[in-house]
Amino acid sequence: MLQITQIMNASAIPAAFQPPPRLLMGPGPSDVAPAVLKALALPLVGHLDPTFVKLMEEIKTMLRTVFQTENGMTFPVSGTGSAGMEFCCVNLIEPGDEVIVGVNGVFGGRMVDVAERCGARVIKVEAPWGKIIEPSQIAAAIKTCKPKLVAIVHAETSTGALTPVAEISKLAREAGALFLLDTVTSLGGCAVEIDTWQVDAVYSGTQKCLSCPPGLSPVSLSERALKVARERKKKVQSWYLDVNLLASYWGQERVYHHTAPISMNYALHEALRLVLIEGLGNRFKRHEQCHLALKKGLDEMGLGIASQEGHQLWQLNAVTVPEGVDEADVRKRLLSEHNIEVGAGLGPLKGKIWRVGLMGETARPANVEKFLVALRTILKR
Amino acid sequence: MLQITQIMNASAIPAAFQPPPRLLMGPGPSDVAPAVLKALALPLVGHLDPTFVKLMEEIKTMLRTVFQTENGMTFPVSGTGSAGMEFCCVNLIEPGDEVIVGVNGVFGGRMVDVAERCGARVIKVEAPWGKIIEPSQIAAAIKTCKPKLVAIVHAETSTGALTPVAEISKLAREAGALFLLDTVTSLGGCAVEIDTWQVDAVYSGTQKCLSCPPGLSPVSLSERALKVARERKKKVQSWYLDVNLLASYWGQERVYHHTAPISMNYALHEALRLVLIEGLGNRFKRHEQCHLALKKGLDEMGLGIASQEGHQLWQLNAVTVPEGVDEADVRKRLLSEHNIEVGAGLGPLKGKIWRVGLMGETARPANVEKFLVALRTILKR
Repeated sequence: MLQITQIMNASAIPAAFQPPPRLLMGPGPSDVAPAVLKALALPLVGHLDPTFVKLMEEIKTMLRTVFQTENGMTFPVSGTGSAGMEFCCVNLIEPGDEVIVGVNGVFGGRMVDVAERCGARVIKVEAPWGKIIEPSQIAAAIKTCKPKLVAIVHAETSTGALTPVAEISKLAREAGALFLLDTVTSLGGCAVEIDTWQVDAVYSGTQKCLSCPPGLSPVSLSERALKVARERKKKVQSWYLDVNLLASYWGQERVYHHTAPISMNYALHEALRLVLIEGLGNRFKRHEQCHLALKKGLDEMGLGIASQEGHQLWQLNAVTVPEGVDEADVRKRLLSEHNIEVGAGLGPLKGKIWRVGLMGETARPANVEKFLVALRTILKR
Repeated sequence: MLQITQIMNASAIPAAFQPPPRLLMGPGPSDVAPAVLKALALPLVGHLDPTFVKLMEEIKTMLRTVFQTENGMTFPVSGTGSAGMEFCCVNLIEPGDEVIVGVNGVFGGRMVDVAERCGARVIKVEAPWGKIIEPSQIAAAIKTCKPKLVAIVHAETSTGALTPVAEISKLAREAGALFLLDTVTSLGGCAVEIDTWQVDAVYSGTQKCLSCPPGLSPVSLSERALKVARERKKKVQSWYLDVNLLASYWGQERVYHHTAPISMNYALHEALRLVLIEGLGNRFKRHEQCHLALKKGLDEMGLGIASQEGHQLWQLNAVTVPEGVDEADVRKRLLSEHNIEVGAGLGPLKGKIWRVGLMGETARPANVEKFLVALRTILKR
């Protein structure tokens, strides 16, 4: 019975991993606080243990505060941010539904793909990468169809643009549609007000401004959205992400669904505690100040930010690559010579920008300074 | 802009989580080795960092050894075991496909649900809970349809039965069907031989006999399975789990797909190292010996194991609850008085069995003894 046909030679077993000491200034993950890393390393309890159930309740309560919502159905999906996007789409969309999606970067484009895989007829509302989606564009699209859902990306991680939400939400509601918001990069770094903005479905990620490792996707659904999911004609196409099943596990019944990622929930609990201890207002101000300091330093080097003036994200800065400079080479040198990670541009912005993240724990004046010094050294400016 | 409407009162912020020191003898998660917890707490690098790419490669290589396969497409899906089940189904099944699923417990039943959500016409092959699926049953089912896929659960976590695989795989292949195997509870605890058994698609979980926290699902697809996924008529209904997209991220191209759960991959890397350092043969023997020690101790108390004789899992023991004993009360006392977690029975076995896991790090003679002493104390036997 024990025929092990491919015993790995002892000398072939890889060495234990030793990560280099990176400063994470890319599009995420961001730096993680020592207390959160310590929480990750706590011994495990079972996923139905009374102490874990209490932890789940505390996470839900803290997430509600961070999302600024009273939605009961607020919890972390057991997957990364893209799983949260898929969670919202599979539960709310049925084949043949008309869905309006704002596309001004990678993540709007991804939502189109996900919604189409749910059988939606997608009406794309496009803006150039780096610009915001204008309410007038959504209003025009609404005139062409009967949307069940209007979806936009709050903070486009691929371009550094922050689209204002309130007016678009109002348009969606007036059209009788649900409103879906991607807050992967905004949550914890700038104002996200789910109830004030009347958002029906929202997803985020843990590895951006919450400064928790990637692996969970905080989501929240309004009562309107839950009703749509409950009254579907067709079963949700994903068992793993079916909110009607997840509700019994994260709700009062505690019915076994899947095994929650225990350690990741430990980490999220601690990361949310740190957010609330700092206070959302203080945290947003810190992000704003770091952005302004970065912008000032870039300006002194003759560099600018590519995204739309007046709508630039604090936490993700699309720094324009100067004429004649090899974007990839600078990025590689930042990593190899200075242990600083920044992101590359994507799509039409490839080679044209560096994406400099100032998210959560990374958003510290000392880190901004460290980055500016390194960039100045490499660019000789 | 900074109207924080629901500032959480500082006194309402939950305290840092302090888990009680549990011995995890339930159906998973199992105890996690200190070295794996330590790996979880290492500082993060980016998910496209060259050092993380190297870590991914090492994980793939080690997983191949543990699965006993040369399949290139062997990697951890960024979700728990049920996400792995869904990964296999969404990629291989198209609407209208006929799929045979063996159902002898919770997880076979779950596979039926997942396959139906992919549009499959499912032919169920059922056995009483605790019994195995017989090859003759599969052979009979094959005569009634033209299956694209035959799926069974190797080690049923809900009943403690181990279904032999080789003959069923042969039947599937002869019928021109792909063969899908759930190894969530078997992998790392007893022989799993993907290439010898000619398994086309397999998924597992990290939190059982690999003794890594829950959060990832190791999977492997054969070339035959990959071809089926590549040549689909319809797009895979899940963007998050689409192997055609994941192949570019986990393959040589390193195209950004989603942000991999960095810390969980650190943990899996270390957990796999520990498995290989121990050696698969030694590890299986340790699981067998613990099972035999448990069985002997139970026998001395007049207790038995409910699953089919000759096919009882080493790593998950369905201990029969004696007449007149309150199953739930004993389980609660094991937890509250002895810090030992065991699992409850599910479905038809609810109230009739305790599920005693001896998985990975938990499978130690001292733990078996600790459990027997605690049970003896509570039952006064």
